[in-house]
Amino acid sequence: MEHIPILKMGNLLLVTIQVDMHDRLAMTLQDDLTSRIVKDQANGVLIDISALDIVDSFIGRMISNTAAMARILDARTVLVGMQPAVAITLVELGLTLHGVQTALNVEKGIALLQRTAT
Amino acid sequence: MEHIPILKMGNLLLVTIQVDMHDRLAMTLQDDLTSRIVKDQANGVLIDISALDIVDSFIGRMISNTAAMARILDARTVLVGMQPAVAITLVELGLTLHGVQTALNVEKGIALLQRTAT
Repeated sequence: MEHIPILKMGNLLLVTIQVDMHDRLAMTLQDDLTSRIVKDQANGVLIDISALDIVDSFIGRMISNTAAMARILDARTVLVGMQPAVAITLVELGLTLHGVQTALNVEKGIALLQRTAT
Repeated sequence: MEHIPILKMGNLLLVTIQVDMHDRLAMTLQDDLTSRIVKDQANGVLIDISALDIVDSFIGRMISNTAAMARILDARTVLVGMQPAVAITLVELGLTLHGVQTALNVEKGIALLQRTAT
């Protein structure tokens, strides 16, 4: 598969990352997502990583960059579904997800975006 | 990745199929999904296939079977995001998705499930 699907739900876009990211796929996702934010006039992006067992510095940077791009386009990004082991690893490796909010799951992520939308 | 993530949104479960399905992954998905329907008391399942360029008889049967299992557990299944080429192929090959409703995208799928929930 060459594209990660981006699902529209109201003013939000939902991206579920299931496959191993590589350079090209990350760039495609950023292209697709920024286009969709503009096209769908989205004000929030949910990135679900519940399928990921590992978040390394490449994925971490990709998520931070994507969030930064979204923010310039006036959309906020919430990272949801992080596995406990991933949270442990992120802290132990000293990786920070700069500019990215997190929520336990999609429902809480939607609530977070809606609560702080105004 | 061994599991396809299942996202809970209210009473609905959302599954985004992005990777090529094979026997084992299909069985894992059916196990996971039926467990989650019971655990989360879901009454609807959305299966997004916008990332799939091809739906062959194996995938078609897998989707039909999954919908049948969900129905026994009192949850309805809506297939969303089908690409035009996939619709053409399904009809040309004479494949039917027995017992599965379809909707254009996630939003319309949610609306369909909510409209007919009562």
